[in-house]
Amino acid sequence: MLKIVILGTGNLAKQLYTTFSKADSVDVVQVVGRNMKELQQFSEYSTISNDFGAITDADVYVIAVKDDAISEVSQYLMDTNRIVAHTSGAIGLNAIKATNKGVFYPLQTFTKDKAVDFSTVPFCVEANDEKSLKTLKTLATSISENVYQIDSEQRKKLHLAAVFVNNFTNYLYSVGEELCLEEGLSFDLLKPLIMETASKIQTMSPKEAQTGPARRNDIKSMESHLMLLDKEEHITLYKLLSQAIKQAHEKEL
Amino acid sequence: MLKIVILGTGNLAKQLYTTFSKADSVDVVQVVGRNMKELQQFSEYSTISNDFGAITDADVYVIAVKDDAISEVSQYLMDTNRIVAHTSGAIGLNAIKATNKGVFYPLQTFTKDKAVDFSTVPFCVEANDEKSLKTLKTLATSISENVYQIDSEQRKKLHLAAVFVNNFTNYLYSVGEELCLEEGLSFDLLKPLIMETASKIQTMSPKEAQTGPARRNDIKSMESHLMLLDKEEHITLYKLLSQAIKQAHEKEL
Repeated sequence: MLKIVILGTGNLAKQLYTTFSKADSVDVVQVVGRNMKELQQFSEYSTISNDFGAITDADVYVIAVKDDAISEVSQYLMDTNRIVAHTSGAIGLNAIKATNKGVFYPLQTFTKDKAVDFSTVPFCVEANDEKSLKTLKTLATSISENVYQIDSEQRKKLHLAAVFVNNFTNYLYSVGEELCLEEGLSFDLLKPLIMETASKIQTMSPKEAQTGPARRNDIKSMESHLMLLDKEEHITLYKLLSQAIKQAHEKEL
Repeated sequence: MLKIVILGTGNLAKQLYTTFSKADSVDVVQVVGRNMKELQQFSEYSTISNDFGAITDADVYVIAVKDDAISEVSQYLMDTNRIVAHTSGAIGLNAIKATNKGVFYPLQTFTKDKAVDFSTVPFCVEANDEKSLKTLKTLATSISENVYQIDSEQRKKLHLAAVFVNNFTNYLYSVGEELCLEEGLSFDLLKPLIMETASKIQTMSPKEAQTGPARRNDIKSMESHLMLLDKEEHITLYKLLSQAIKQAHEKEL
């Protein structure tokens, strides 16, 4: 049985807490955070504390706080010889101020009140020694089928890739919604297409799955699309993305 | 029982054929196309012909050919008093050279060898008279639960919106794949995130669902991301999309 302490009370902390509490091989012995009101939600299976000077003994300390608070929180664990791991995609291993440093990064987007099924979430683990790495792998395997050993440089690139496929993609969805609303149309019209586009690349490379006027270099269609756009940022975006798609597929034309 | 003829033998023609053939209230009496080899695949439930001068009598003629061939194909049906409908998002109603013009546009992406479940596909129908419109609605309802009456102007805007959420989104997926491969990482790592991002906006407005450094105006994270990008088009795209997200959420900061 792995004993863990979760530090933090945000979305990710909550979802990890719920999932680990159900895992047979893990015991969440304590949750520590500043906000006593938020902490109440963690009292069902664990002790709670808002005193970072009173952290319980455990095998792994999982820091699930904002990126810029990771180092500060880890300082409370400077003297432990157990593993201190953060859960961020963007922060290096060395941000941890403790002897046995680790990273335990679930590559997924977490929304308030929307439970994520961790069994399919890729966990990217890293540590500064083999034994800690093995423990973090065991911890990740207790809740997920997809565990990857990924170093800090790779993880930063992965986090950047995640910005493209998640944050930027979501922005394109919002442009789609805006264009629908301008015509008095429901955004529901686009939802099945959005699901199918995401579903398609689960089994097909996105490069292969690319369709549309830009791939075909269908200048007439692209020109009539540009005529329909009013906002400067939508026009620039349309041109830039079409140009990039065209370039990526130039050899085929 | 509605009798229909499908004109065309591509992806969409095939998927419509398969789906209509299973619908109780529709009879696909004939499939007409140029390519005799492709036509063979339609012989199970229908007669086939590669002679556009020998089109059978039917209630609705569904033209599922490339955009720039629609007008030409519709000319073979100039003398009929039945409905002649095309299936394109980008082409106006008047491209049809027949008396009873219609549009029967399934808003979805169709991939070779990947069957689409039409029951959830939004069908956008339009016609130049009430009776034809009613018939097209009946035809769409026989295979889909989501039938919308949409005029040509709205449909063009919708098609443009589809380019943003499908073609452009898919390009962002391909950037994600490229960044993974550069680090020797599997694109599989990003797939659950891609599904969750698409799934999230099924119940939440994308504007509300927006996350990431640009929304928080986290300049430090954005700068370190830019340092990791090599390709000029990725840098330009990162800056442009971040700027657009920042602008859309400026008031919150």
